[in-house]
Amino acid sequence: MIKIKNDLFLKALKGEKVDRPPVWIMRQAGRYLPDFMKLKNKYDFFTRCQTPELACEITLMPIQQIGLDAAIIFSDILVVPQAMGVKVEMKNNFGPFIEFPIKNKSDIQNLDIKNAEERLDYVFKAVEMTKKALNNEVPLIGFAGSPWTILCYMIEGSGSKNFASVKNFCFKNPELAHNLLEKITKVTISYLKKKILSGIDAVQLFDSWGGVLSHTDYQIFSYPYIKQISDSLNSISPVIIYPKGCWHSLSAYSKIGAAAIGIDWSCSARNARYLTGNNITLQGNFDPSRLFSSKKDIKKHTLSMLNEFGKQSYIANLGHGILPNTPVDNVKTFVKTIKDYK
Amino acid sequence: MIKIKNDLFLKALKGEKVDRPPVWIMRQAGRYLPDFMKLKNKYDFFTRCQTPELACEITLMPIQQIGLDAAIIFSDILVVPQAMGVKVEMKNNFGPFIEFPIKNKSDIQNLDIKNAEERLDYVFKAVEMTKKALNNEVPLIGFAGSPWTILCYMIEGSGSKNFASVKNFCFKNPELAHNLLEKITKVTISYLKKKILSGIDAVQLFDSWGGVLSHTDYQIFSYPYIKQISDSLNSISPVIIYPKGCWHSLSAYSKIGAAAIGIDWSCSARNARYLTGNNITLQGNFDPSRLFSSKKDIKKHTLSMLNEFGKQSYIANLGHGILPNTPVDNVKTFVKTIKDYK
Repeated sequence: MIKIKNDLFLKALKGEKVDRPPVWIMRQAGRYLPDFMKLKNKYDFFTRCQTPELACEITLMPIQQIGLDAAIIFSDILVVPQAMGVKVEMKNNFGPFIEFPIKNKSDIQNLDIKNAEERLDYVFKAVEMTKKALNNEVPLIGFAGSPWTILCYMIEGSGSKNFASVKNFCFKNPELAHNLLEKITKVTISYLKKKILSGIDAVQLFDSWGGVLSHTDYQIFSYPYIKQISDSLNSISPVIIYPKGCWHSLSAYSKIGAAAIGIDWSCSARNARYLTGNNITLQGNFDPSRLFSSKKDIKKHTLSMLNEFGKQSYIANLGHGILPNTPVDNVKTFVKTIKDYK
Repeated sequence: MIKIKNDLFLKALKGEKVDRPPVWIMRQAGRYLPDFMKLKNKYDFFTRCQTPELACEITLMPIQQIGLDAAIIFSDILVVPQAMGVKVEMKNNFGPFIEFPIKNKSDIQNLDIKNAEERLDYVFKAVEMTKKALNNEVPLIGFAGSPWTILCYMIEGSGSKNFASVKNFCFKNPELAHNLLEKITKVTISYLKKKILSGIDAVQLFDSWGGVLSHTDYQIFSYPYIKQISDSLNSISPVIIYPKGCWHSLSAYSKIGAAAIGIDWSCSARNARYLTGNNITLQGNFDPSRLFSSKKDIKKHTLSMLNEFGKQSYIANLGHGILPNTPVDNVKTFVKTIKDYK
């Protein structure tokens, strides 16, 4: 295997000793960099995702301009339902939008899951191109949504205030929900396996909407499918599980052989270490909104995060994706504080 | 003091022994009852709030039709900023909307907080009228939003996906944020004191948006102001604190002399009891979406909630407000399961 020059991130994933914690930022490939905004105005969202040259260019931007310790391929979790035959749009100032969300059994039956991953060839091409361009300087992360989170979008048709439609659907028709979750899981595993073969060095699973379920329903509708994906990939790639708002399941996730768990900002480092028995790498958890504070405050809060998580078995990151309009200089202050940490 | 015939709720608040847990439902006075929907089509939101006869009629509906163990006065947390001079609209299928949200220091200075509670006279009248109509059958709850939650609305102007504007404001201008929080706290205390004098039997504080803050920022921007309100009222009324998404602060809230803590559905009964040292009454935490399940599932999940919280020092409720379109029969199944619990 080819050695990656800056291997801090991979070392932290293995729990190996590091001189300082590595740092990357969720959604670093987009949203706030001026050069990205120029591309955004020129090409629509899925053109950017589906054109390997553009995805590669965007993935590299934060590495070159901010100096992070890992790259994450520019893409979206909704490429998976798209490959299953769902028409997904990305609306400006609104987010993802599905005009014809899943409503019933026949909608689920009509999904085209056979070899769905082949329709994601543009992602694998982008990964290959980006790996080449990165020239083994830093590792490259690939990702997918959790089956529950993808199902939320497929049924709600967009983000939601209280996710009443999707919960309504799942609680009224649990068999249909499980049938859909199984299909998404199957496609996601094939997709991620091919992504790993294409060259990515680690996988992150985003359960962005896990927190809308109760602790009990989470065990029914989300956890088992994430575990299934993690079980299928653990032996071929480090897996990071990011279960937003699911502090109740941190303990369970610490025991299934994943490499790391992403922590959101509602859970303190102390609680996260306690709940995971202090025996897995943790990633997180700076509040993205805190990057709008003064530089002095950013430094202070970053240092206290570092002190609380500790230098080992830790990957510095935000607790969720970076927000649009985050001042680039503030991001640099955040990253510098971590890089200077001894 | 006049004895209330069904005093299960008040007993549970005091931690006194009961034969079964009391039950009420957040947002029970509205949203799902057909008779309420008729009034909703006839009168706009603030007309319903500001007309004591209507508020009284709506408050009584769920008592008469569902048979709950406590009434909660029909009103809204946004009557407080309204009384401070902020123009609040309630938009159909959207929620609260403030056309001119707070943007700067002069907006805060322009708030009219002197005797703001006098502009809430219609609430006190509604309380008096409702107490009379209830004829001491069940106790009457009054409520207010937490200062942080009210500030969120005042700055965002509506609900929000990620509360970026309000957090941005507070993290950039902490002094202004605290100045505004102090003003809201002051008005809220005067308002609740008058509400208690008008006859309510218990107060609930809704920190609906507490969960958008990190554990650290919650200690800065929300907890101290809730504690201040609780400290001011504890000796004259039982106080229930409902800090949605703030499991990190349950331990702190269990020690400040409040009567009870409301638990949302992301926190299991076992965790809630553990975090509060098992020495305060807890309220909650059925997922409102679960009321869309089959009756069999509703019964099963309600029973497991009751078994996990235990019969004593417990008030059965949802983990958040009841959702529009909840089937009335399902609500009755939920309530009957609790009333039959031995």
